[in-house]
Amino acid sequence: MQGRFITFEGGEGAGKSTQIRRLHDRLAALGIDVVVTREPGGSPGAEFIRDLLLSGGARGLGPRGEAMLFAAARADHVDATIRPALEAGKWVLCDRFADSTRVYQGEAGVDAHLLGLLETAATLDLRPDLTVLIDVPADVGLKRVAARSRNAGADRGPDRFEDEALGVHERRRALFLELARDEPERIRIVDGSGDAAEVEAAVWAAVSERFGLERSAPRRKRREAADGARG
Amino acid sequence: MQGRFITFEGGEGAGKSTQIRRLHDRLAALGIDVVVTREPGGSPGAEFIRDLLLSGGARGLGPRGEAMLFAAARADHVDATIRPALEAGKWVLCDRFADSTRVYQGEAGVDAHLLGLLETAATLDLRPDLTVLIDVPADVGLKRVAARSRNAGADRGPDRFEDEALGVHERRRALFLELARDEPERIRIVDGSGDAAEVEAAVWAAVSERFGLERSAPRRKRREAADGARG
Repeated sequence: MQGRFITFEGGEGAGKSTQIRRLHDRLAALGIDVVVTREPGGSPGAEFIRDLLLSGGARGLGPRGEAMLFAAARADHVDATIRPALEAGKWVLCDRFADSTRVYQGEAGVDAHLLGLLETAATLDLRPDLTVLIDVPADVGLKRVAARSRNAGADRGPDRFEDEALGVHERRRALFLELARDEPERIRIVDGSGDAAEVEAAVWAAVSERFGLERSAPRRKRREAADGARG
Repeated sequence: MQGRFITFEGGEGAGKSTQIRRLHDRLAALGIDVVVTREPGGSPGAEFIRDLLLSGGARGLGPRGEAMLFAAARADHVDATIRPALEAGKWVLCDRFADSTRVYQGEAGVDAHLLGLLETAATLDLRPDLTVLIDVPADVGLKRVAARSRNAGADRGPDRFEDEALGVHERRRALFLELARDEPERIRIVDGSGDAAEVEAAVWAAVSERFGLERSAPRRKRREAADGARG
């Protein structure tokens, strides 16, 4: 059986990685084989491009060349990681995918038609079954990023995408919301401004409804496991 | 006035760089402002991708991802070097361009339609006014490469594209000739198996005919300069 492909999108500090971990646990509790991955990167060939992109080493290329580096990394990620997992019946949760390129490089001025060409070239028309857009006001997301950087001490400052003016983040948010309006079937908007448990419940509502899973399944699963131990 | 864009294509050891230098000198003798460049690379942003590609560091990406790296480098090269030079009225001589991607990545199995998408994305439809395809039998070219490597001592062994089986080089040659058959107006085949002076004459015949230059112009130019010195 073909697996399911779920992507998480949103601006900086939206809480995507936390929510991906939580969704992973809920799905795994249902006995589903789940692969968690991320972009850029997610496969050995793509990770070295990730380093170039996030360090700013590729910035000299300009937004169009940079969009192609994202596409190169995505092509490898799709071929080496995502498609094999889906074909093996696994569910793939991916932190950022093609929508991020539309938004980030689109905001940076790359032509939408050109981004569409690159998306086709990179994904060979593999589309997410569901995209969870975690939406937070730009200033809220940036405050979270700042807190994360402080907690990480000197180890991790903001990367080059995080480290940009508020107006840039606001324009990206607007572009994400526009994509969701254009593809309401695929992209579900989840309000990410609450605490992690509230957001988790909203994500689970979207996922369980989309794929016909039982809302309360994980809890029941745990009870069954406990029953088994007693039996 | 818009300049002219001339690309040189061909397999390994075809003698492209020698012929580009000689054509540069002939055009310069006519008072034409000539820019010589090459791919991959040819602009600061693209040169770092060149290093990745030629060292084999990007090989883990597979041919499709690699084709995108070539496209990323080309986008920057077009934007930063080629288009500005043409707009300033200069003639641009470029060692390899989009035809090399069609041939090398096409031979490696990348879908032609996909390569077309990437070409459009990278060049934004900038096409050479003339492409000189220097054609030599694959074994002749490889012998030249081997001799070049020996002469360079330990400094420069073959790069990863040179260092491949004869059959690969033969298939590339056949693909280049196929492109020339498909676009006879743009691509002129020059027999590269003779000595450098013979090939130079054939290149000049193609260039002077295509752009309506006088065949004997460089010699006349030198005579005029001598006359001037005597006057």
